[in-house]
Amino acid sequence: MIRGKVTGRVWSTKRIDTLPNGALLEVKVGTSTLVAFDPLGCAEGEEVLITQGSVAAAYFTNIKAPVDALIVGSVDAS
Amino acid sequence: MIRGKVTGRVWSTKRIDTLPNGALLEVKVGTSTLVAFDPLGCAEGEEVLITQGSVAAAYFTNIKAPVDALIVGSVDAS
Amino acid sequence: MIRGKVTGRVWSTKRIDTLPNGALLEVKVGTSTLVAFDPLGCAEGEEVLITQGSVAAAYFTNIKAPVDALIVGSVDAS
Amino acid sequence: MIRGKVTGRVWSTKRIDTLPNGALLEVKVGTSTLVAFDPLGCAEGEEVLITQGSVAAAYFTNIKAPVDALIVGSVDAS
Amino acid sequence: MIRGKVTGRVWSTKRIDTLPNGALLEVKVGTSTLVAFDPLGCAEGEEVLITQGSVAAAYFTNIKAPVDALIVGSVDAS
Repeated sequence: MIRGKVTGRVWSTKRIDTLPNGALLEVKVGTSTLVAFDPLGCAEGEEVLITQGSVAAAYFTNIKAPVDALIVGSVDAS
Repeated sequence: MIRGKVTGRVWSTKRIDTLPNGALLEVKVGTSTLVAFDPLGCAEGEEVLITQGSVAAAYFTNIKAPVDALIVGSVDAS
Repeated sequence: MIRGKVTGRVWSTKRIDTLPNGALLEVKVGTSTLVAFDPLGCAEGEEVLITQGSVAAAYFTNIKAPVDALIVGSVDAS
Repeated sequence: MIRGKVTGRVWSTKRIDTLPNGALLEVKVGTSTLVAFDPLGCAEGEEVLITQGSVAAAYFTNIKAPVDALIVGSVDAS
Repeated sequence: MIRGKVTGRVWSTKRIDTLPNGALLEVKVGTSTLVAFDPLGCAEGEEVLITQGSVAAAYFTNIKAPVDALIVGSVDAS
């Protein structure tokens, strides 16, 4: 997994039908930015763990969900 | 997913048979460029979300489609 | 696989249900950092080998485990 | 997919049995170089599109073909 | 595939049970280093081709082998 910080949210009205409804969050990881599906209701500034690739898509019962980045956890504040 | 901006289109006449017909768009992501299959009819300059890897290929009912980058949505203008 | 050094541990209480219980270790690989599932009980400072992607998830009998980085071995001190 | 330019060919006599016979081309993509399987008979200097990962391997009827980079098309000269 | 040069070998006694026995070689690819499973008996200094990801794991009859980098050929000296 990779660790990053939520920096915003992306809305997409024009989308393919199989993209699941739910929050798509921008997450800064090092110097780059990913857009990840968020099933946990994370907020801006939150530190999260992201899983990528086909492993992320397997989360959805709809096996065709075209999601390759999934927030799997929020990092506990230390 | 990653977010990028459509910068052009690529045509390929000499291609393998299983590459689906449809638009192949050049998308600038940070400092690099990808070529993604576009099922949404996106235009140059449009901001899009791209899914990569086997998750992208699963979009096609032909399970052999050799496509590893798919435009899954257009980012709403804010 | 890639080789890295364990630099810490991450705790995540707010997480998706299918994320397996067990240690999530921060591992420094070159100039970047991954978070990998550790089935071996590795300690901070230990040199480890990490497998990534769907191959990592296949380790879990629960085929839905959203884990894309797995510590598969500890490098013998030379 | 990614776009690159063919810069040469690689020969490998000592190889695993399941590596398919056929051309293995060196393709320059940005500042790095990949070696891709070429089913199209591309020439040095040709601009090509490459698909990577398990999607590339699925091209082969032998499901065990250890090929993770496949030339899927040649870019039309504009 | 990617091309690299063998620079050493890694030993791992503490490992997960499904990691196959056999040589794990360090291979320098550009400025980074991978650890790849070697079924060919390659030597230090040898130029090799590496396949990555789930395609590499598919080489093993044990479908659970957590190997994401496999040496598939040695580059012929030119």
